[in-house]
Amino acid sequence: MEHKAIITPEELLKHWQGHRRLTRKVLAAFPEKELFEFSIGGMRTYADLTKEMLSIAVPGLEGIVNNTTEGYSHNLDLQTKDALLQAWDEDTPRIDELFGRITEQRFREDFNLFGEYKFPVIENIQYFIDNEIHHRGQGYVYLRALGIEPPMFWDRY
Amino acid sequence: MEHKAIITPEELLKHWQGHRRLTRKVLAAFPEKELFEFSIGGMRTYADLTKEMLSIAVPGLEGIVNNTTEGYSHNLDLQTKDALLQAWDEDTPRIDELFGRITEQRFREDFNLFGEYKFPVIENIQYFIDNEIHHRGQGYVYLRALGIEPPMFWDRY
Repeated sequence: MEHKAIITPEELLKHWQGHRRLTRKVLAAFPEKELFEFSIGGMRTYADLTKEMLSIAVPGLEGIVNNTTEGYSHNLDLQTKDALLQAWDEDTPRIDELFGRITEQRFREDFNLFGEYKFPVIENIQYFIDNEIHHRGQGYVYLRALGIEPPMFWDRY
Repeated sequence: MEHKAIITPEELLKHWQGHRRLTRKVLAAFPEKELFEFSIGGMRTYADLTKEMLSIAVPGLEGIVNNTTEGYSHNLDLQTKDALLQAWDEDTPRIDELFGRITEQRFREDFNLFGEYKFPVIENIQYFIDNEIHHRGQGYVYLRALGIEPPMFWDRY
């Protein structure tokens, strides 16, 4: 059976932004103190996991669009929950804009993301999304351990 | 700019099976007792999370391929880690086979998964994968809480 491609760039972007809406709800559900202090088993705080997401999404897309391979830093100077939420919201339209500049051909080309991870651009972007789902799932456990009900997994609206 | 689709069914299947290899490693990393007994914050054990994944993947694909909308059950009779690993491995070729029977047109059609979730087939399948990443991320926290080093997130080989 011959197959053709089944996910368009627009659909993948919509899928990602839906996940980002849920990830924002998980961030918003943390109390200020626990966001920056609570963790389990020596893992990073949810503030640090959020900073990782922020330091991958827009910087990664900028690297792809501008064809630059600078390294990345998770060490963002965001010291409050409001600052993290604001950074998250500011990135939303930037992701739309940068993603929209990736051509069909470019998705198929290898790119050495952050000078370290050489894969087709489409796989780099799938990694951004999967990594966000992965760390957000960890945030769900933190919230449950804190006695806080996390949002429903399908709540991406 | 006009975009065309960028992910083929074969690529999506390969992506999923890569994730499934990592998810199997997380399952294998649990000690027998903690797999069935340990949890955090009132959540399900990793055995139960694994049963959920097993009760979605092949049954969901069977529903899509056979156009049946029976409900699903997470309550699989798998009582040991070996039984879970064996079920996981038996599903691997079944997923390949069932996925390969979904036509390009079918991916675009709405399907009322398990009689409950009416979305395009492609979105149903993305949900299977995302849900697995989400719960596996929770397994990482359980392992860390148990003092066990989980596999690397990129280790899908």
